[in-house]
Amino acid sequence: MAPALKPADLWSDVTALRERAPLVHNITNLVVANFNANVLLAVGASPVMAHAHEEVADMVGIAQALVLNIGTLDAYWVESMKLALTAARARGVPVVLDPVGAGATPYRNRVVEELLTIGPPSVLRANASEVMSVAGSSERTRGVDSTARSERALESARALSSRLGSVVCVSGAIDHVVDARGGRSARLGNGHPWMARVTGMGCSASALVGALCAVSSDPFRATVAAMALFGVAGELAVEELHARAHGFGGLPAALIDTLQLLDQTTFERRLKLDLPG
Amino acid sequence: MAPALKPADLWSDVTALRERAPLVHNITNLVVANFNANVLLAVGASPVMAHAHEEVADMVGIAQALVLNIGTLDAYWVESMKLALTAARARGVPVVLDPVGAGATPYRNRVVEELLTIGPPSVLRANASEVMSVAGSSERTRGVDSTARSERALESARALSSRLGSVVCVSGAIDHVVDARGGRSARLGNGHPWMARVTGMGCSASALVGALCAVSSDPFRATVAAMALFGVAGELAVEELHARAHGFGGLPAALIDTLQLLDQTTFERRLKLDLPG
Amino acid sequence: MAPALKPADLWSDVTALRERAPLVHNITNLVVANFNANVLLAVGASPVMAHAHEEVADMVGIAQALVLNIGTLDAYWVESMKLALTAARARGVPVVLDPVGAGATPYRNRVVEELLTIGPPSVLRANASEVMSVAGSSERTRGVDSTARSERALESARALSSRLGSVVCVSGAIDHVVDARGGRSARLGNGHPWMARVTGMGCSASALVGALCAVSSDPFRATVAAMALFGVAGELAVEELHARAHGFGGLPAALIDTLQLLDQTTFERRLKLDLPG
Repeated sequence: MAPALKPADLWSDVTALRERAPLVHNITNLVVANFNANVLLAVGASPVMAHAHEEVADMVGIAQALVLNIGTLDAYWVESMKLALTAARARGVPVVLDPVGAGATPYRNRVVEELLTIGPPSVLRANASEVMSVAGSSERTRGVDSTARSERALESARALSSRLGSVVCVSGAIDHVVDARGGRSARLGNGHPWMARVTGMGCSASALVGALCAVSSDPFRATVAAMALFGVAGELAVEELHARAHGFGGLPAALIDTLQLLDQTTFERRLKLDLPG
Repeated sequence: MAPALKPADLWSDVTALRERAPLVHNITNLVVANFNANVLLAVGASPVMAHAHEEVADMVGIAQALVLNIGTLDAYWVESMKLALTAARARGVPVVLDPVGAGATPYRNRVVEELLTIGPPSVLRANASEVMSVAGSSERTRGVDSTARSERALESARALSSRLGSVVCVSGAIDHVVDARGGRSARLGNGHPWMARVTGMGCSASALVGALCAVSSDPFRATVAAMALFGVAGELAVEELHARAHGFGGLPAALIDTLQLLDQTTFERRLKLDLPG
Repeated sequence: MAPALKPADLWSDVTALRERAPLVHNITNLVVANFNANVLLAVGASPVMAHAHEEVADMVGIAQALVLNIGTLDAYWVESMKLALTAARARGVPVVLDPVGAGATPYRNRVVEELLTIGPPSVLRANASEVMSVAGSSERTRGVDSTARSERALESARALSSRLGSVVCVSGAIDHVVDARGGRSARLGNGHPWMARVTGMGCSASALVGALCAVSSDPFRATVAAMALFGVAGELAVEELHARAHGFGGLPAALIDTLQLLDQTTFERRLKLDLPG
């Protein structure tokens, strides 16, 4: 069994990200594209958004990671994702899938299945309802928000990770990261409820997972590092807003500040990481 | 005749919105999608953006309101709006139409007519030029900005409301809400000129109208409540920026703060509502 | 030879922009559409985003400038750009082309060539890698970021400006503006490295060039004025963030504040303009 991850290991991945500035190719939704690009820039990655059928395979070819997000899918964009996913698998580029709104409509479920049929992603990150939906649980998603608690989705995550061989991350008050075949799991307790009150936070976490996958050969470690970074930065950003008696309107900007300025000491001191194995 | 709306009635709708967190389905433009989602989250609604022909009817089926915004329309998105509108009418889901840029091009005018032919929305919200264009006035729209004063559009709003049976809201320095068939109208004097200097403010007001329609069976009252909330929150946000000697760059974030944090006392004290009947 | 541009000349163009509020038609990418609209509003322009094939020519017909940005191109949007470009040339509307990511994929290169075949833009603004790619240099673009220094691209800019007859602007630590046929060039030293860490800054500079072209008959002067305004506003915005010990998360909002509030004295005092001729 691999030695347990230490906070310093996770930070070394953050440092690698800042130094190497990997190109992260995103096929993402219209709502969060700007925010996700800025989140990626804040951690030192180089984001590119491209979805034209004529170029997605070429763009994957110069990228170090691919992030697929179905938030505002339609037939054209689904085909873009399929072409990119196929190219990424052929070239060994790590892939993160964010099945936004899975369970909300039969179409979303069908598209997720079609993407998984092409090949499992390195990492699938979603909220509890979405993970349960993708895993085949009959529980109903209410739009794109999570109404089921992430703990209840843990069993679905384990089943899904085992079936796909992918790392599965269920985000919520507690983030769970599961690598069923590798017999590894992690729980992360950072973050703040306000993060669910701003659009694109989950999508940005997925983008960060992609960025960390670009500098790490271990998708489990990359996912833990990304969720740790995002959770710690998020709660620090909320504290900053509280200190100014502000609401969450400034959270996107404050989060980007924290992602940019976070240092190792603060990261390690704030990290709430549990590795049950 | 119904008893006149009181500020406390409007606030009770805001409270209902915060408590019930209705799902608001938006088919909106690419420029404002992020901001509109954050505005809806700030007032406690649960936004979903979805436009795929394969799923719009299903998404309408789990939503409590539908908001259509033609700001960056094209043939695919127009068809999405038609499918969603048809589904909403069949299921009794309230619909808000924001005819952004009506009058700017013949295509926009044609699309608005086609949507209205499927069925009138519960509420149509627009600026003065757009309302006059939709009402068939020959006055020319200059792009998407309002060059005609909202007062001059009031006659068009009355004619349009009478013809469609919809509530019509003309926003501007003074917001007018007209329910011609119900013999009701309202004037709202809140807001600040800076709100016209940030993109997506009108679109966000329309999204808020949708959110209030999701928790109220009376579209006139819902529209008055939404415009009141938006105007009061907007002018408070501008005052906050003035106090910090800032410009309107921070207005989107400040507005979201105010929408999140506004309390009943402040709302009722600031409200400038006139109900001529 | 024309008399050299003076800072007061550039400021008079900024003033003209604020007074005349020209309609600037943007066919731009999904990532930056919101930010670009707000940048245009901050300087007093009236932005419109429209890409439907049915209306782009009509929209160009009521606009005073057209800005084309290929950042998230696909076949539909490329056709929109071609239709708009054709209409702009027929009507004498100035055109700015931002070839985002040129060199990253063969498709982007092909699209840029097709657009240039319809007719050269009034101004082409890009980073060093993109300019070298469009000019036919064999140097490879790394995604949409500039890895080559703008100085090294100056030769490409001169060749491209000479071939097209367009003003070419290479932005970077030093912005170069070249009008090869007119025998004019300018160097601008304003700005801050943080501007490369926020998405859409280059795209917003291109939008500003469009706005200035809408109020000036000289594309060279309009480009120098736009890049001067953008660079000065950008460095002032960063200083404001530094003073509050913030990172670049608030840079978009701070930049909009500065664009809105900048006065002539500050502009002229900060301007670093060199006109080698």
